[in-house]
Amino acid sequence: MSLTTQVPHLKTALKGPLLELEKHFLDNRAQIESWFRKQFKNTPAPFYASVDLRNAGYKLAPVDTNLFPAGFNNLHPDLRSLAVHAAQTAVTQACPIADGVLIIPENHTRNTYYLENLYSLKEIIEAAGYEVHIGSLMADLTEPMQIDLPSGNQLLLKPIERKDDRVGVEGFFPCAVLLNNDLSGGRPEILENIEQTLLPPLELGWADRYKTEHFAHYSVVTKAFAEMLGLDPWLINPTSISCGPINFKERTGLEELAGTVNKVLEQTQKDYDAHNIACKPFVIVKSDSGTYGMAIMSVNSADDVLNLNRKQRNKMASVKEGLQVEQMLVQEGVYTYEKMDDAVAEPVVYMIGSQVIGSFYRVHTGKTATDNLNSPGMHFEPLSFAESGVVPDETQNPDASPNRFYAYGVIARLALLAAAREIAEAKGSLTQIDAI
Amino acid sequence: MSLTTQVPHLKTALKGPLLELEKHFLDNRAQIESWFRKQFKNTPAPFYASVDLRNAGYKLAPVDTNLFPAGFNNLHPDLRSLAVHAAQTAVTQACPIADGVLIIPENHTRNTYYLENLYSLKEIIEAAGYEVHIGSLMADLTEPMQIDLPSGNQLLLKPIERKDDRVGVEGFFPCAVLLNNDLSGGRPEILENIEQTLLPPLELGWADRYKTEHFAHYSVVTKAFAEMLGLDPWLINPTSISCGPINFKERTGLEELAGTVNKVLEQTQKDYDAHNIACKPFVIVKSDSGTYGMAIMSVNSADDVLNLNRKQRNKMASVKEGLQVEQMLVQEGVYTYEKMDDAVAEPVVYMIGSQVIGSFYRVHTGKTATDNLNSPGMHFEPLSFAESGVVPDETQNPDASPNRFYAYGVIARLALLAAAREIAEAKGSLTQIDAI
Repeated sequence: MSLTTQVPHLKTALKGPLLELEKHFLDNRAQIESWFRKQFKNTPAPFYASVDLRNAGYKLAPVDTNLFPAGFNNLHPDLRSLAVHAAQTAVTQACPIADGVLIIPENHTRNTYYLENLYSLKEIIEAAGYEVHIGSLMADLTEPMQIDLPSGNQLLLKPIERKDDRVGVEGFFPCAVLLNNDLSGGRPEILENIEQTLLPPLELGWADRYKTEHFAHYSVVTKAFAEMLGLDPWLINPTSISCGPINFKERTGLEELAGTVNKVLEQTQKDYDAHNIACKPFVIVKSDSGTYGMAIMSVNSADDVLNLNRKQRNKMASVKEGLQVEQMLVQEGVYTYEKMDDAVAEPVVYMIGSQVIGSFYRVHTGKTATDNLNSPGMHFEPLSFAESGVVPDETQNPDASPNRFYAYGVIARLALLAAAREIAEAKGSLTQIDAI
Repeated sequence: MSLTTQVPHLKTALKGPLLELEKHFLDNRAQIESWFRKQFKNTPAPFYASVDLRNAGYKLAPVDTNLFPAGFNNLHPDLRSLAVHAAQTAVTQACPIADGVLIIPENHTRNTYYLENLYSLKEIIEAAGYEVHIGSLMADLTEPMQIDLPSGNQLLLKPIERKDDRVGVEGFFPCAVLLNNDLSGGRPEILENIEQTLLPPLELGWADRYKTEHFAHYSVVTKAFAEMLGLDPWLINPTSISCGPINFKERTGLEELAGTVNKVLEQTQKDYDAHNIACKPFVIVKSDSGTYGMAIMSVNSADDVLNLNRKQRNKMASVKEGLQVEQMLVQEGVYTYEKMDDAVAEPVVYMIGSQVIGSFYRVHTGKTATDNLNSPGMHFEPLSFAESGVVPDETQNPDASPNRFYAYGVIARLALLAAAREIAEAKGSLTQIDAI
């Protein structure tokens, strides 16, 4: 067995030789774990997060960090007790006296994928020993609503209510309130200034949060991390520049956007040259706030932006719940070279507190290595444990999948730390980050 | 997936219908987890422990609680990340600033099973992000000694040294010192009054500890637990009476021992009658301190004690490292009705901090349901995850093995809480235990 089991031993899709970067992480795992421990002691991790990664072989980077993760139903059941233990630690840390947790979900009552996720999340926290109820923000919900799920389980959504400075449902007003709603629709009045512990805080919803800020924090984090390891930070950090305001419908700001796209393409070409990489640079343009794989495109040149047709512009003009797109993030595209059954795949890593608790592959049979995979037609492949136990891992090659997956857990936790620093900044408690 | 995943979903050997008791635990798991959380908040769990259980169908009880567990190498590799996460939490709780951990092992240099365990334990703590060195108490060790293990790994034992009020090896004097030596040989002078955090404290070694005290604490714990659940505490608590001094070699105290055996047999018969159990009572007589399955016998009558031959008396007269047997624990025998491939088996549950991190079966092909299985000829069957994921567990019967294993995790943690209370008593910080 190897020393990498801070992160579960999961199967990965990548079969090629172990990358220089992954080897470097493996060789320095004790130092890495110790560093993370210090960082998360200074800056507590969010209650939970999921991070989308892209592994280009020469570069391994996060492309999206979700502070309101759905998809808990896609994690492999064998990993469930990891999630339960981590949830117990995370709730206790946020709220030592908590006996119950109120979950505030998205307002999707017809998206059964989302609702199965909500059921799994509720189960995890219940198994950690908390009473859990779901308080819905839906305006038209006046009494409890039972939903039958495809899995055969039932979910009970109750209308959230406010009593003085606390929110709850039917006499249940626990210390811990967990948001599983990304607030794309804005900051709900009912949650303002509550005395309970809201996880994560309102400021981290998409009504206030910008991806640019996340990647700025990520840049600071990776700089310190790379310095500690004597590593080139570019290998784990995608170039990210914000750009705006842009109005796709009215075609304003597109020239500036094209200029920014050019800038990132040129910078990426320089970096490719410096690292002897023979790939063609590409750029991802995405809304600086919001999620759900909307308002995102992969482009190869400034012209791609200038020549958008009306349908494409309309698509870029809106994200979930009509949140207005004004600012864009222009980011160096990272190829994904992982494949499952010939379809491109990217790993999505789940964390509760500061611990990696599982992962799955987002797989898309209709896409290529430069495409955004978070789009209709994708499916999920839960990662189970890699075969092990018969032969100790040290006797396996360092590119055996349990060893390989460690690197994903490291990068995901760097993004987690960046998110933790976003929260600390919102609370006015951000501290200096040190390499050592 | 079920709500029982506070404890890993493991396979169990028992195939019969779910017992009343196990069902009761499953129905009240949220309340149980919440209760444990409160108890371990008031009374911190030991760094680690393993508990031997016996499942008689009508009764489920711990028979041995080991505060210096070996056997980490027998745990299933898939569970390794659970152990790593739990170790990180446990070290942080004991020693928030710890960067390293010194392990003090047993002095067995030829027992490769033990040394493989030591290697696994070292790996777990290293993977949690700590520098780990092994400081040996062996008197004749003057320089580092490398041991090649059958697994192909190497272990480096270094002579422990003391500098002022700290112990360490070669300039490594970390905050946390982990005992994996049960101190059967007495309290080592070098460990007295060190300023580092010793886990567990010296008082919990076999030089000072009595099983009787553990079971007295266990009795208090189960009384509160049973009261909370409206449960008959006898179902989880074996009658235990201490008896001594006894000198088997000189045949002194044997009459008193026979009397105590009779007392426990009679009490057990009464309890069997009250519970409509048609089994024949038996009694386990074991040394009140010490471990390793020595000085232990299973008896059916007082005559069994009075008619011991010389060989049997010699065996009862000594435990590991010549620790003198003077006081005996006379305990209600609990049948084990679990079998693996027709051999009797008993589950051994491992915990780090307050979390169950794995389990294996101790299996003995040459023994019966009333025998002590911790004896030469035993072997170990690591428990892997139960098949799951295809069908959600709620649609499985409640006696599906993941559900069944939950009960083992509950009883093991009750014994863990009893051990935590032993530590609190040694430190003078024992508090009242409440049912609610």
